[in-house]
Amino acid sequence: MSASARTRPSPEVLSAVTAELQALFGNRAVTSEAVRQQHGHTLTVIANQPPDIVVFPQDVDDCVAVMKLAAKHDVPVIPFGTGTSLEGHVNAPHGGISVDTSLMKAIIEVHAEDLDVVVEPGVTRKQLNEYLRDMGLFFPIDPGADASIGGMASTRASGTNAVRYGTMKDNVIALEVVLPNGEVIETSRRAKKSSAGYDLTHLFVGSEGTLGLITKVTLKLHGIPEAISAAVCSFPSVKAAADTTIAAIQSGIPLARIELLDEVQVRAVNVYSKLALPESPLLLLEFHGTDAGVAEQVERFRAIADDFGGGNFEWAVKAEDRTRLWQARHDAYWAALALRPGTKSQSSDVCVPLSRLAECIDETKKDIVETGLVAPIVGHVGDGNFHVLPLMDENDPADVARVTAFMGRIVDRALAMGGTCTGEHGVGQGKMKYLKAEHGAAALALMGALKRAVDPAGIMNPGKIVAG
Amino acid sequence: MSASARTRPSPEVLSAVTAELQALFGNRAVTSEAVRQQHGHTLTVIANQPPDIVVFPQDVDDCVAVMKLAAKHDVPVIPFGTGTSLEGHVNAPHGGISVDTSLMKAIIEVHAEDLDVVVEPGVTRKQLNEYLRDMGLFFPIDPGADASIGGMASTRASGTNAVRYGTMKDNVIALEVVLPNGEVIETSRRAKKSSAGYDLTHLFVGSEGTLGLITKVTLKLHGIPEAISAAVCSFPSVKAAADTTIAAIQSGIPLARIELLDEVQVRAVNVYSKLALPESPLLLLEFHGTDAGVAEQVERFRAIADDFGGGNFEWAVKAEDRTRLWQARHDAYWAALALRPGTKSQSSDVCVPLSRLAECIDETKKDIVETGLVAPIVGHVGDGNFHVLPLMDENDPADVARVTAFMGRIVDRALAMGGTCTGEHGVGQGKMKYLKAEHGAAALALMGALKRAVDPAGIMNPGKIVAG
Repeated sequence: MSASARTRPSPEVLSAVTAELQALFGNRAVTSEAVRQQHGHTLTVIANQPPDIVVFPQDVDDCVAVMKLAAKHDVPVIPFGTGTSLEGHVNAPHGGISVDTSLMKAIIEVHAEDLDVVVEPGVTRKQLNEYLRDMGLFFPIDPGADASIGGMASTRASGTNAVRYGTMKDNVIALEVVLPNGEVIETSRRAKKSSAGYDLTHLFVGSEGTLGLITKVTLKLHGIPEAISAAVCSFPSVKAAADTTIAAIQSGIPLARIELLDEVQVRAVNVYSKLALPESPLLLLEFHGTDAGVAEQVERFRAIADDFGGGNFEWAVKAEDRTRLWQARHDAYWAALALRPGTKSQSSDVCVPLSRLAECIDETKKDIVETGLVAPIVGHVGDGNFHVLPLMDENDPADVARVTAFMGRIVDRALAMGGTCTGEHGVGQGKMKYLKAEHGAAALALMGALKRAVDPAGIMNPGKIVAG
Repeated sequence: MSASARTRPSPEVLSAVTAELQALFGNRAVTSEAVRQQHGHTLTVIANQPPDIVVFPQDVDDCVAVMKLAAKHDVPVIPFGTGTSLEGHVNAPHGGISVDTSLMKAIIEVHAEDLDVVVEPGVTRKQLNEYLRDMGLFFPIDPGADASIGGMASTRASGTNAVRYGTMKDNVIALEVVLPNGEVIETSRRAKKSSAGYDLTHLFVGSEGTLGLITKVTLKLHGIPEAISAAVCSFPSVKAAADTTIAAIQSGIPLARIELLDEVQVRAVNVYSKLALPESPLLLLEFHGTDAGVAEQVERFRAIADDFGGGNFEWAVKAEDRTRLWQARHDAYWAALALRPGTKSQSSDVCVPLSRLAECIDETKKDIVETGLVAPIVGHVGDGNFHVLPLMDENDPADVARVTAFMGRIVDRALAMGGTCTGEHGVGQGKMKYLKAEHGAAALALMGALKRAVDPAGIMNPGKIVAG
């Protein structure tokens, strides 16, 4: 069946699929309402569309069995990590089988000399970093949530450390994938570089489960830096903070983290996380290196911040103070919601060229005022990526419509500045409507051709990214 | 016509194509024997297979016109940069149109604040760096030859700076491509990161002209470091040099270049470039950073080298001394050939995980002795990538067979160690025979499916990477 013509499986097909899955997986094949609901769950306002059945494979052979069965019955397969994605990636608009990777949590091999590790897709980033700590190694990608590595690869995730260490695109070395035809491939070797044909690794990174089931991930690792320092620095305006960021990056300071919180978000964080940060636009920084190197970075950064009116430079050298600051940053979403209890939020994540960042945030802040919204801003500004979190009453259609239109204007603004509709959250269901404007019809048609080449029957996570 | 069934264009088709191209391009459509021969030319022993006609487009519209005409007549299109590739990439086994990009040499836009630049594909890396120098910026990828940016993107090139700055995979932000159907796409926006759908940029980087014609390239730039120091350091054995490399990388020293020359290659370089380097295995190093940062890197590197018996640490702080050393490194291929004048060489470029590098080079050196070859070794050892340059008399079939078998054994050895048959040269015609062993049948079939999805008629550079 072609993806565009896809409908829900018939009751007959569904009962055959369920019987076969239960025969194979026993109590690891679940059809209870609660478990199905949980597997369609997303963190946003997109309506829940639960799968018909949830299976919990333990290894690649289990995944191959699911895929072959799904292909035989022409039933959708939706990969599931921890369910922390934001754009309806795990929803099942056409029903089907949710493949929950939470039992595939083995850290298979650490190659310390090669600075890489091979893991199963259900391993979470915190689990991995706890495992690695005693070896003096770490995995830097940090999207905030304790997401699974398979999910992070699938959405091309990034987060606060990307300015120094890149995104999942830069940190996935190889994948093992079960293709829709049931074949198992490795997308690349472990060698640091290769020119041996088409780049299959990057085809699957960011493909959001629409091309195959990831069953193994090889990741780059980094040595834990000898010295880590964190600091906060206040600015008279968002523009001053953004201009400081541009100048620091241009001058080659290897910032590990540089996060912007606007004055609204700082107020939210102070209340939620019981901090006493000055309530003006703020950069939250982290420096990694040798002792001497970090000292030099900080000195150079302070000189630049001074030029743009930065002040109140405060330190957090102790690990517990740093942890508290970054926890507050990671709780920004919940802190924002607490500004208007009972509300929900959508989260934009546009990314623009650094040179346009100050202008893009400035215009967005004007739009917030004109629209009359409460909408804190927090951003991975070293990458030109920022989040706006407009609060809304999801039971008030006028409020929802007002916020939805506002979110669309942010995307239009970013696209007009050479940016993208999504820097890190992915397309899922929520951002499909923006792809034609971003990529153009011909590039989008090419994406559709790739999808059909890899998944001709359209069984992999249908209704996401491209229609099929 | 499917690619696998492809034959040369008939005389009737050829004369129609030639007439149409000459009408469109005038004297920028050339059929002279000399120009055709030159455009099938490669630097190795692979036999020359000239195209039927060579065209010199001036802009993307010219490229679209060529592509539409080629599609109409079902005639191959072979993109051509500077002809410095090593695996027969520009050969025309089925005839067709060579598209020489040497008139597309505009540096379109430098975005200094965003550290990126947009160029036409015929721009060469030296041209680009001369243009950028006064802005304090540089483009780091350096494969030795003064290759074109379009060609470097197509082969996923790298070279001596990759250990610090990555390969073309890490430095191409976006491409403009003419697809085989004549449509023009942009593969990505200029923003530093995006999760907006399939990664079209990486699909084309390394695709060797088999999926489309690159007409524009957006590249990452870097600030010229405040301080640059180069040094040479001798070692008692290749293993000691490799072990020093592993330890230095693991300890997080951000080496900009770390190149190994074995004692045979050092002797060749001394003769060819009139140097007096000690004739033992040698690391050629470069450090980039602030003054204090470079001093710290050097001190830490020396301590590690000392542990592995490294000695004769010699400096080249002055720019002219550095240039002389790196010129000697870049001339390694010609220096090797001069060891046995009149011979030719093949160049292997396997890449293995760093932890296996010493073992892989050691076994290869034993093989050289047992086979009775003269075969210098030079390597980008920070990446686990090395070249072996066995000399041979191309008129002696026994010599050619002996060397060809030896080259196959290097690949087998690298694959058994988790490596790749090609770290940077690409597949072209020469390495197609290794891809099944490297990727497996299912992954290779997937590459074929991608090729057919993008280029169903098989007109783009047929006979390279995958059969079609």
